[in-house]
Amino acid sequence: MPTPAFGNVAGIALQATQSDAFSAIQDDVLLSSSLWANIALAGASILLFAYMGRNIEAGRARLIWGATLMIPLVSISSYLGLASGLTVGFIEMPPGHALAGEEVMSQWGRYLTWALSTPMILLALGLLADVDTGSLFIVVTADIGMCVTGLAAALVTSSLAFRWLFYVVSCTFFLVVLYALLTEWPVAAEKAGTDDIFGTLRILTVVLWLGYPIIWALGVEGLAIVQSVGLTSWGYSALDIFAKYVFAFLLLRWVAANERIVSTPSTSTQSGASPADD
Amino acid sequence: MPTPAFGNVAGIALQATQSDAFSAIQDDVLLSSSLWANIALAGASILLFAYMGRNIEAGRARLIWGATLMIPLVSISSYLGLASGLTVGFIEMPPGHALAGEEVMSQWGRYLTWALSTPMILLALGLLADVDTGSLFIVVTADIGMCVTGLAAALVTSSLAFRWLFYVVSCTFFLVVLYALLTEWPVAAEKAGTDDIFGTLRILTVVLWLGYPIIWALGVEGLAIVQSVGLTSWGYSALDIFAKYVFAFLLLRWVAANERIVSTPSTSTQSGASPADD
Amino acid sequence: MPTPAFGNVAGIALQATQSDAFSAIQDDVLLSSSLWANIALAGASILLFAYMGRNIEAGRARLIWGATLMIPLVSISSYLGLASGLTVGFIEMPPGHALAGEEVMSQWGRYLTWALSTPMILLALGLLADVDTGSLFIVVTADIGMCVTGLAAALVTSSLAFRWLFYVVSCTFFLVVLYALLTEWPVAAEKAGTDDIFGTLRILTVVLWLGYPIIWALGVEGLAIVQSVGLTSWGYSALDIFAKYVFAFLLLRWVAANERIVSTPSTSTQSGASPADD
Repeated sequence: MPTPAFGNVAGIALQATQSDAFSAIQDDVLLSSSLWANIALAGASILLFAYMGRNIEAGRARLIWGATLMIPLVSISSYLGLASGLTVGFIEMPPGHALAGEEVMSQWGRYLTWALSTPMILLALGLLADVDTGSLFIVVTADIGMCVTGLAAALVTSSLAFRWLFYVVSCTFFLVVLYALLTEWPVAAEKAGTDDIFGTLRILTVVLWLGYPIIWALGVEGLAIVQSVGLTSWGYSALDIFAKYVFAFLLLRWVAANERIVSTPSTSTQSGASPADD
Repeated sequence: MPTPAFGNVAGIALQATQSDAFSAIQDDVLLSSSLWANIALAGASILLFAYMGRNIEAGRARLIWGATLMIPLVSISSYLGLASGLTVGFIEMPPGHALAGEEVMSQWGRYLTWALSTPMILLALGLLADVDTGSLFIVVTADIGMCVTGLAAALVTSSLAFRWLFYVVSCTFFLVVLYALLTEWPVAAEKAGTDDIFGTLRILTVVLWLGYPIIWALGVEGLAIVQSVGLTSWGYSALDIFAKYVFAFLLLRWVAANERIVSTPSTSTQSGASPADD
Repeated sequence: MPTPAFGNVAGIALQATQSDAFSAIQDDVLLSSSLWANIALAGASILLFAYMGRNIEAGRARLIWGATLMIPLVSISSYLGLASGLTVGFIEMPPGHALAGEEVMSQWGRYLTWALSTPMILLALGLLADVDTGSLFIVVTADIGMCVTGLAAALVTSSLAFRWLFYVVSCTFFLVVLYALLTEWPVAAEKAGTDDIFGTLRILTVVLWLGYPIIWALGVEGLAIVQSVGLTSWGYSALDIFAKYVFAFLLLRWVAANERIVSTPSTSTQSGASPADD
């Protein structure tokens, strides 16, 4: 194979960013601890959840277990991407920003992997509440829209106004998700007889998810009231710990103990059992 | 945090592209108006559609409303990405192209966000016609394939032949979508009693969607018969206005007025009601 | 439009990578034959499969045909991306790797397009076994997680340890897919009366899919026991030929001959017919 000549410039430069980010993270104890804490907890959760679900056999309960198991698996992938420097970059903030002209580390991989992990949380909640497939599809799409526009908000460097425009659009997608979680899915959960645990997990999710846009607004990417990359990173990491592992643990513990309630095939994703109910 | 050294080259260069694109767009009235017209219309559509659907309560009708509301939300995200320069680049056309060797602005973000917005249009149509989940899944996958290979066609610079090979593959995916829209979904719509409005929206969609590959072929990215980036951009923007906002408006107005017809839970995505029909 | 100045550096460099990769592939007969063999076979499969399915009319059988047709369509897109150099790059292996410090061609586009093609294989298998939508959704998510972390494993250059950490996570996602294919889906297939063909295709899929992580481990990206990029590429290409075109051909031939068995609307994705069965 011939040696590539000029093309290497781009490849080398991109790999240099990865190595620089890798070194910068390793040299910053606060920052690297925010990532490794999640890698360790996600790893432990995978083993714990696999064990907790070993005896779950019945239909929908097993599906909820499967969706729940995906949450720490996607999360560990996300944090490995950040810790290796692969999904981290340095961006120069636009004029008008508190850190204008400075190079700021952007953990853009977070937004990208949230687009895969948060749908799993919504799928677990949706299966628990036994909502119909169409509703789940729309909420998951709004959720992905929220993550992708959040990614755009983090990556825009040409103009401060556009950073906040994307922020507003991302929050609008979030409103669609909130609307479903607060008004439509509780009705479905009541019908499914799971409103008790659904109510707990819904409050946990709504309160914690509200934290993400707040951290964005206060942290280095937004108003930069908190100017430490490590502290901003710990903000997201702490939310992830509660919104992902604690959430999944509570859900799985309940499902393992109440398998019978969610053992009937879902009326929305499987139809075999529903005629008998009428 | 230590200052990154060489890694910045890539980051700075990529951000410079973003700023260059941002400036180039701002300096070109024709081009920037093609983007801002859509940002304004998408914003107005979001408010209008949220208002139009406020009283829709019944099952499938509400889902169609949700899917329809996603269309302008994804569209505004797409156009903000273009106007900010984030999803725009400059590519050098390969030998044999009418603009060979010249730097041409590529609005590659259009193809990427179509992969999220066009599935919502198909979802709305599919819910209206009450097609089954499996069919919807395949058509949406073909649609995503069409957008992703369209993106590839736009980004290939190593060889003119490969640009057109990707174009042909993208059109083949489009044929799968067209086939479903023209032969299978109308049958489902007739059963669902929605064939009247479905027929109108189907024709609107088929005719307008045929416009996109035609513009690609005639515009700067294809044969470059139209060599103005602004004019090519307006071509796509005009199609978007009709295929997205006008389409969604017609659909939503019909659903609001005929809620009863689509109020029964879908036979495909929800099963509760179907036994009673037999 | 004003001439972009510095921004071009990134664009030009990235395009140079594409052209370098394009040339490097054209000059390497072993490597380029591994790509063109698949382009030719995928093209022939598209035509053959479209022909084979022309008379399939009944519900789920038609869906399986649609999903099967997607497999070579996505595959031809993938190989066109590799052959054009668009989805190929050069990476410098990290210290500790057998090829440390050398520039190695990375066909990263393979991992990206597997994220679209392998879900279609699972969809076809899932429809054949008539599994429920929720189970399919989880398995497809695990499958996408497997492909995306495989992509990360291939692209990490900052640290050898992280390459193998991603490899382990990718294999864990694979275990979730394997678990469903080996324990849960066969039960569903038996109920659906398709266990005969499902058994054959399941073994074909499990055995062949195990080949991918083995090639990764032995090839240039892993332990580099095989140091030829062309040979590694042929390894993947040979697996693709059997796991995609031969798999799809066997499935489609069976469906065309046994349309009646899979002609009933799925109990999981469509509910209309199931009440009559009870």
